[in-house]
Amino acid sequence: MALDRMIEAIAQKQNPTVAGLDPKLDYIPAFIKERCFEEYGKNLQGAAQALLLFNCGLIDALCDIVPAVKPQCAYYEMYGWAGVKALHDTIAYAHDKGMFVITDGKRNDIGATMTAYAAAHLGDTDVEGVTATAFGSDALTVNGYLGSDGIRPLLSVCKEKDAGIFVLVKTSNPSSGELQDRILQDGSSIYATMGNMCEEWGKELPGRYGYTGVGAVVGATYPAQLGEMRKAAPHTFFLVPGYGAQGGAADDVAPAFDQKGLGAIVNASRGIMCAWQKHGFDEKDFGQAAREEALRMRDAIVSRIGPITL
Amino acid sequence: MALDRMIEAIAQKQNPTVAGLDPKLDYIPAFIKERCFEEYGKNLQGAAQALLLFNCGLIDALCDIVPAVKPQCAYYEMYGWAGVKALHDTIAYAHDKGMFVITDGKRNDIGATMTAYAAAHLGDTDVEGVTATAFGSDALTVNGYLGSDGIRPLLSVCKEKDAGIFVLVKTSNPSSGELQDRILQDGSSIYATMGNMCEEWGKELPGRYGYTGVGAVVGATYPAQLGEMRKAAPHTFFLVPGYGAQGGAADDVAPAFDQKGLGAIVNASRGIMCAWQKHGFDEKDFGQAAREEALRMRDAIVSRIGPITL
Repeated sequence: MALDRMIEAIAQKQNPTVAGLDPKLDYIPAFIKERCFEEYGKNLQGAAQALLLFNCGLIDALCDIVPAVKPQCAYYEMYGWAGVKALHDTIAYAHDKGMFVITDGKRNDIGATMTAYAAAHLGDTDVEGVTATAFGSDALTVNGYLGSDGIRPLLSVCKEKDAGIFVLVKTSNPSSGELQDRILQDGSSIYATMGNMCEEWGKELPGRYGYTGVGAVVGATYPAQLGEMRKAAPHTFFLVPGYGAQGGAADDVAPAFDQKGLGAIVNASRGIMCAWQKHGFDEKDFGQAAREEALRMRDAIVSRIGPITL
Repeated sequence: MALDRMIEAIAQKQNPTVAGLDPKLDYIPAFIKERCFEEYGKNLQGAAQALLLFNCGLIDALCDIVPAVKPQCAYYEMYGWAGVKALHDTIAYAHDKGMFVITDGKRNDIGATMTAYAAAHLGDTDVEGVTATAFGSDALTVNGYLGSDGIRPLLSVCKEKDAGIFVLVKTSNPSSGELQDRILQDGSSIYATMGNMCEEWGKELPGRYGYTGVGAVVGATYPAQLGEMRKAAPHTFFLVPGYGAQGGAADDVAPAFDQKGLGAIVNASRGIMCAWQKHGFDEKDFGQAAREEALRMRDAIVSRIGPITL
């Protein structure tokens, strides 16, 4: 199961974090952008190439200490098909460097259409007998509002391709409670109900380390809910956004982990991508700055949760 | 407001339907695929070009009688960046032919990221002072599980670009009730709660014909809920999937409409795209077959709801 591959990489690197690759042009050093605009023009193609080179530099700087990257689709789609090609090339580059890739697309649809999304992001595409790979990521974030029909096609592909999913349960944004915190007649919250659904779906993708191939997104900005869900969904691995720029700290994410230091992977995007700006590095040293920030994040979390054992 | 543009096109053509462009290779005539595989190879590029040529043929055949098309992102993403380029080119072609375009992406995320999705699909992308358009659709389907933070960035772009959104309320798939039909402590269902949120968000995008720029997705497969939501969300225009292949008929969608024949646009995808196969047309006549099916669908619905008046 793909989350086993991720869990093994977390333990091997003693680092339960993932670097979010949500590159805005503002985050990218001028020397990269100038080179790309010169070659491709100041347009979507030029911008997309700058994203890719920036990502490759970050991956080079992080790949031996950080187990995974999480590119966020929106920041590629905003540069059109050229941006989406940069997403593809980023995934391929991260794979070359041995990293686990979580595509953050929060996809959702009815069954037939989720089959297409599953092929697109995790599986293969059949072109009348010729097998091609569209994006070939290791895991995909999804939204479970449509129920089981929209999840099951992913489970088949996950089985076949050794991939995993993370279902939105309690998101990190300020208004996440408007719907997710509402209480049902049986006394449970909507997010807890979704957490239970993850546990059920996960039964089809059992893993070696106590966690299934169906993970959940639970935000660092809601530590009480993180702890509650860790108990309520003991076989569900958490992808935890909201660390750093959104306000979450090591103490906030600690409740997401079990006694062995497993159970969660914490994402930071801006904190790592913009480290060179925040800490006054020369722009050529953006990779070194990202690496130092990633090490600080790792150390802050691991010193709080202790060593990670399988 | 963009849904006003759509409503005017519906009234002008006396046709409250939208043609879903969810092209699978199996639906595409062999002569198109052969030509594309010959030119580009039997690969993602060749497949993507076949999607585009098929879509263009359908748009040519439908543009004077059908007001809108709805490309579904998953069926393009499964062909990688080349497929996504075919999505872009399909949107551009539909615009050239005067059609309103609803991109069915069901996107959702936290505020900062939704700003990127809004730029990608409805607005413009700023490349350091140069304005470019990534996809430039007229409306986007979205998932409201994250609450207002994930919707408001779209509202700003909708205002600026005369665009609209459709929020998932009650989806057409068999398992939609697993979460959406659950009853909250206040006695309302989750889908009705989401419908109320659409009414609230819509206040920021008022329209000329009684409907706001914030629409809702409500499936033809649940006619009782369609009628309930028509009353409960009187300013929210419905995008109604599930007609035809998924089982919905003209009687089922009738409750979605108001006294003037407004209030809903009904989608059919497979029924129109595969009409040439179903009705035994020569493959070269796939456009004519789609047109005849679209006219049958229009006539079935309009004969049930009566003339459409603004």
